[in-house]
Amino acid sequence: MDYVYGPGRNHLFVPGPVNIPDQVLRAMNRNNEDYRSPAIPALTKVLIEDVKKIFKTTSGTPFLFPTTGTGAWESALTNTLSPGDRIVSFLIGQFSLLWIDQQQRLKFNVDVVESEWGQGANLDVLASKIAEDKEHTIKAICIVHNETATGVTNNLATVRKILDHYQHPALYLVDGVSSICALDFRMDEWGIDVALTGSQKALSLPTGMGIVCASPKALEASKTAKSVRVFFDWNDYLRFYKLGTYWPYTPSIQLLYGLRAALDLIFEEGLDNVIARHTRLAKATRLAVEAWGLKNCTQKEEWFSDTVTAVIVPSYIDSSEIVRRAWKRYNLSLGLGLNKVAGKVFRIGHLGNLNELQLLGCLAGVEMVLKDVGYPVKLGSGVAAASAYLQNSTPLIPSRI
Amino acid sequence: MDYVYGPGRNHLFVPGPVNIPDQVLRAMNRNNEDYRSPAIPALTKVLIEDVKKIFKTTSGTPFLFPTTGTGAWESALTNTLSPGDRIVSFLIGQFSLLWIDQQQRLKFNVDVVESEWGQGANLDVLASKIAEDKEHTIKAICIVHNETATGVTNNLATVRKILDHYQHPALYLVDGVSSICALDFRMDEWGIDVALTGSQKALSLPTGMGIVCASPKALEASKTAKSVRVFFDWNDYLRFYKLGTYWPYTPSIQLLYGLRAALDLIFEEGLDNVIARHTRLAKATRLAVEAWGLKNCTQKEEWFSDTVTAVIVPSYIDSSEIVRRAWKRYNLSLGLGLNKVAGKVFRIGHLGNLNELQLLGCLAGVEMVLKDVGYPVKLGSGVAAASAYLQNSTPLIPSRI
Amino acid sequence: MDYVYGPGRNHLFVPGPVNIPDQVLRAMNRNNEDYRSPAIPALTKVLIEDVKKIFKTTSGTPFLFPTTGTGAWESALTNTLSPGDRIVSFLIGQFSLLWIDQQQRLKFNVDVVESEWGQGANLDVLASKIAEDKEHTIKAICIVHNETATGVTNNLATVRKILDHYQHPALYLVDGVSSICALDFRMDEWGIDVALTGSQKALSLPTGMGIVCASPKALEASKTAKSVRVFFDWNDYLRFYKLGTYWPYTPSIQLLYGLRAALDLIFEEGLDNVIARHTRLAKATRLAVEAWGLKNCTQKEEWFSDTVTAVIVPSYIDSSEIVRRAWKRYNLSLGLGLNKVAGKVFRIGHLGNLNELQLLGCLAGVEMVLKDVGYPVKLGSGVAAASAYLQNSTPLIPSRI
Amino acid sequence: MDYVYGPGRNHLFVPGPVNIPDQVLRAMNRNNEDYRSPAIPALTKVLIEDVKKIFKTTSGTPFLFPTTGTGAWESALTNTLSPGDRIVSFLIGQFSLLWIDQQQRLKFNVDVVESEWGQGANLDVLASKIAEDKEHTIKAICIVHNETATGVTNNLATVRKILDHYQHPALYLVDGVSSICALDFRMDEWGIDVALTGSQKALSLPTGMGIVCASPKALEASKTAKSVRVFFDWNDYLRFYKLGTYWPYTPSIQLLYGLRAALDLIFEEGLDNVIARHTRLAKATRLAVEAWGLKNCTQKEEWFSDTVTAVIVPSYIDSSEIVRRAWKRYNLSLGLGLNKVAGKVFRIGHLGNLNELQLLGCLAGVEMVLKDVGYPVKLGSGVAAASAYLQNSTPLIPSRI
Repeated sequence: MDYVYGPGRNHLFVPGPVNIPDQVLRAMNRNNEDYRSPAIPALTKVLIEDVKKIFKTTSGTPFLFPTTGTGAWESALTNTLSPGDRIVSFLIGQFSLLWIDQQQRLKFNVDVVESEWGQGANLDVLASKIAEDKEHTIKAICIVHNETATGVTNNLATVRKILDHYQHPALYLVDGVSSICALDFRMDEWGIDVALTGSQKALSLPTGMGIVCASPKALEASKTAKSVRVFFDWNDYLRFYKLGTYWPYTPSIQLLYGLRAALDLIFEEGLDNVIARHTRLAKATRLAVEAWGLKNCTQKEEWFSDTVTAVIVPSYIDSSEIVRRAWKRYNLSLGLGLNKVAGKVFRIGHLGNLNELQLLGCLAGVEMVLKDVGYPVKLGSGVAAASAYLQNSTPLIPSRI
Repeated sequence: MDYVYGPGRNHLFVPGPVNIPDQVLRAMNRNNEDYRSPAIPALTKVLIEDVKKIFKTTSGTPFLFPTTGTGAWESALTNTLSPGDRIVSFLIGQFSLLWIDQQQRLKFNVDVVESEWGQGANLDVLASKIAEDKEHTIKAICIVHNETATGVTNNLATVRKILDHYQHPALYLVDGVSSICALDFRMDEWGIDVALTGSQKALSLPTGMGIVCASPKALEASKTAKSVRVFFDWNDYLRFYKLGTYWPYTPSIQLLYGLRAALDLIFEEGLDNVIARHTRLAKATRLAVEAWGLKNCTQKEEWFSDTVTAVIVPSYIDSSEIVRRAWKRYNLSLGLGLNKVAGKVFRIGHLGNLNELQLLGCLAGVEMVLKDVGYPVKLGSGVAAASAYLQNSTPLIPSRI
Repeated sequence: MDYVYGPGRNHLFVPGPVNIPDQVLRAMNRNNEDYRSPAIPALTKVLIEDVKKIFKTTSGTPFLFPTTGTGAWESALTNTLSPGDRIVSFLIGQFSLLWIDQQQRLKFNVDVVESEWGQGANLDVLASKIAEDKEHTIKAICIVHNETATGVTNNLATVRKILDHYQHPALYLVDGVSSICALDFRMDEWGIDVALTGSQKALSLPTGMGIVCASPKALEASKTAKSVRVFFDWNDYLRFYKLGTYWPYTPSIQLLYGLRAALDLIFEEGLDNVIARHTRLAKATRLAVEAWGLKNCTQKEEWFSDTVTAVIVPSYIDSSEIVRRAWKRYNLSLGLGLNKVAGKVFRIGHLGNLNELQLLGCLAGVEMVLKDVGYPVKLGSGVAAASAYLQNSTPLIPSRI
Repeated sequence: MDYVYGPGRNHLFVPGPVNIPDQVLRAMNRNNEDYRSPAIPALTKVLIEDVKKIFKTTSGTPFLFPTTGTGAWESALTNTLSPGDRIVSFLIGQFSLLWIDQQQRLKFNVDVVESEWGQGANLDVLASKIAEDKEHTIKAICIVHNETATGVTNNLATVRKILDHYQHPALYLVDGVSSICALDFRMDEWGIDVALTGSQKALSLPTGMGIVCASPKALEASKTAKSVRVFFDWNDYLRFYKLGTYWPYTPSIQLLYGLRAALDLIFEEGLDNVIARHTRLAKATRLAVEAWGLKNCTQKEEWFSDTVTAVIVPSYIDSSEIVRRAWKRYNLSLGLGLNKVAGKVFRIGHLGNLNELQLLGCLAGVEMVLKDVGYPVKLGSGVAAASAYLQNSTPLIPSRI
């Protein structure tokens, strides 16, 4: 089954699925269980409470769907909106594009605010639209916190400010797939109504759990939302929450224990330290890119993503060749450029359970690949820039002091 | 995390999720991978071909959704039907009930044919309805092959005969969740248009993969079906199949490798031998039930299920107490009675990767529990009956001869 | 690699190596580590303390050798004795025989006290020898607590009484390989000088750790013992204990974490409960043997072993055929008869992390095999006898009450 | 149990135990088995044949002892020599020192040829001794192929040449612990009589298997060798080899399956490619050391080890502080300086299942640590030097071309 075997570890630097910590692998290495025994509801109950912490919410209600981010999107939309509802959505890269595609196919009236790829959501346009919308025809704002295709992070606090400024009641739906547990994310403080993520991103689990968290306002909206839904219906979950059995249909026993282990690691490190680590590794990555003489696809510092860096390659190089070669020669998995930026960028994912030396190994690999494909990089330059920063900023491991 | 620890193995005899073979656990004990590298499409390509074998189809197209059986249902319905479409559906137990509930919530016009719980689908009624439907207002027949709540197996060949007899073009949709890979199932021969199963049943994997297989006629129907769908849309998959990248969104790497290992085990044993083993273990179970002086919830032999046996308890006993006690005293997980038969039956799941002595251990446990709750069972009687049969019918393990 | 694949679980009922609990497998599913980092000594320090509890000693010093029981024997002997030393040793079965063979090859002057296989150590002979030995020429008594080949448990307390009665200073060396953690064992109370076990027995770990525990008197003896030893030398360990680095050479990281998990399970269940469970399962097994009309190889009740039962088969049956067939047809692993009792007995190991229904599955399997080979067993009879007892004596699982 | 948790992977660069490939971890993630069933002998038989390949022998007989390298040493010596036998042994570092200590404690007459630490075995002295020894009082030459403490590789071919030149019949015993499977090693061609290694070194397994391979001449010697031995006695093994049951006592089931997986990986990569990879990674490491302006402990190029590099630190730095800090801040495990070179060198192990980017991550880490402890390294310099070489010399991964 390992017909593409290469010696040593695979260096996994796609922006998801990401490296799973050994502790989580161990926790998941188990047989199935009866999910109707008292054990699984007891486990679930605590998980649901603990999951709130990574959303920074106390009033939200989490749902742990056996699905992916795409399914979590669908759950967020169909539980809160009705076909024909007007929503404002920002197109800034491949994943926001896919979400908009879904919104349109689910028959919403999508008011698309497009930015150049590499830029963040145009919140000025949002402000105008909100300002103009005296009759509250806009039912929801849909925004991707972190656009994984371009490495762009949007300012969620500003969106809330705009809505508050105009006292606009639109629901505020956020894709936090490549941000939650890695970037600063504050569901309650920012008045987010639905936030969602996927297990295989910063939680560092296998794919298969789409986590959706709904504010009281979102739950209220779900009572009147007319979108057809069954598998993704919150109501079925709420009914089983009340019964204390928690699951309308079979969950993955392994992912539940995996989530337990993943949260334990995050809480042991401290969520703020986890976020600081992502900031640190991202900064180091950007310094390396700069040292290589290459450009970040993200056009302004305010949008720099701390979970993924999309690097623009010179026009005479095909970025896909970089990704291919990294995998074929150095067992390094980088992210391809997608859609509009296909061939033009490659991406370094630096999210999840990752440390400094793993990143430096990756950066050293990127340097060699760049040389392989004919880019005149100075070998060691990126690593030097990154490690100069890291050597100054990396804390001691608390458990080892 | 194992706060309900008891010494020794848990004896898992719910009708799903079932025991995972060690070989599959090993195959799944792995880090994430980039699903856009050449490795995962290569793996997927072969899996899709091999999955056809367990459906006994050569013309079908399988889809491996990151979902559960409930999601697989939704995918089967929304890809082939439009809101308002008339469908005939059989209510014979809790799982057919849930599927019908979904059908109704998805806005189909469901013509429910109800049987007493413990009986199979009333195919005479089906025949009349089909006979009368000269104008082909019936767009689909939806039937659960094996009703897990009552241990009833429906006759799928007869459904096809009825449709053929009247040359009726209705789509034929089958829930094979607790049948495929365990009971005789012939998608092509029986002209089934959509068949589906879940990974945690006879495939003996963790929950998280809903496998849907579509006939050419079903694929054709999907082109005009107006049900809203995105996550469960076959079209997105077909587009990626054509591209050779296979995945419109992130699959579970672990489940793919797990499916590979599970299929390898099934093919090594031989699918027909797997089915024969299920027949053998089921027969042994029914002999034990008889020896205990208890009744099978399934009312006629023609409907006896070879994957799950629902056992009726005397009216003075609460079957939930049996399930509770089995778990609390003997580390034995049995299935509860659901809905109409709650408190009246308990269920022994005997599907998936299981052998004779595991079953006999379970039967010995059931005997002790029956005694615990005051039923005057003769200890050893069920085991004696079951083993008399098994000792005559169990073949040598081929690899050890 | 699984070229002898059979569906379902292997039913492992040899008297070692025994079933490993899933919790232990998970704990061991890990990469290597630097054993010179602060982590491993910290782990080791606590392990050494906790290991004392299973020996019921507070004054003993445990050594965790990377070896098997055979190596542990060698360590016990060579650290305390000098070539030519007279030792009294009891020959009652294959394992005591092998230990005696080792003693002789290590050049001790072995005074062998032989009993018929199926009987315990002849302690009357010991008493005479001790009584006569006014000059204390006997340097050590070597006794196997539980002879795994015949299922005979010796009375260790009596040995101590004899020595005390005559105020004889002989060292008291005990092989507790198939007893410690399963049978009542009291190192301090019984004045045992060296006790030893292997990881793959009642501790329910993989093979690879030989645990030797030395009393202060044994440590004292090691200072003058002239037997040549290096790998098995306690002194090297003691030196590293003092340094706080604990390991004179590389330990198995996985077994250390595994031991941690194994001890955690034992302490959670409670050592006395673990022993009571062994008593219960053994009693059930003996009742089954009786019900089958077969004889226990152990000739008197006082010697009945609670970890392994050797069953005598009628002379017209070859017990090896039973073991072979159990494995080939039912995926059941039983113990062969060894040496003098080869072909005459088969053995059921009932030690380690095991519960009632696992045992009953095994007993049901043995019944079928007996029938297979032509013994006129009444199917179900053994299971009936065993479960009648177990249904009366099995406690609720404490964590589930 | 992971009380020293730090985020991300541990970077394990001690010269053993080394990183275990995931494929091997998976293969070992399994329950115990009856080692007397037909499965384990069948597995063992093939393993013994395949193990010969890594020793490059066809005439040798391998023994897979449940022990460590220290035990393998003892087995090599006690099976071939008698107390009082004169042996020539080379003291060039901590591990040769420990072996010599063992030789002396086993009562051999050890003729120690000492070199400065950092130099190889003085083969000129050997030549003189052999030349002078007309009466063949020298019974064996004992040499460590690769001294792990100083990173010195001895020239084994020369030893053979010297013996042949003088037609000296001394046995030729080689510690290949940190060489076999990583360095060029030719048991038959070089006329080695006993070669040995440990599982946790280049085989990339957990600790617990000491592999000893004996030439026909060594087997012959074992018939008359008078050293006392039981656990480590080849004879017991040979007896069971003949019986076809292979094991005189219980082996670790998990290590047997692990060895199978480890050999599969080595054979898939190709043993010569494995060795070439070690050469490549070692060369890269030495280039980094040079770029840092530091000195290799190994004094001449002819002795450079391709499995471990000992780096001399400036006198104002304590190398232990480097090792401590690497672990505490960067989750990097380096080797301490031992004995004479304690505090003076730190060691980078680059053996086993390892690739280029893993090494570069380590080198980047070492640079940061050097800076941390006050050495004026130019960050990125070592990585630059190493990757300039690697970018030119690393082949494509064959399975991915």
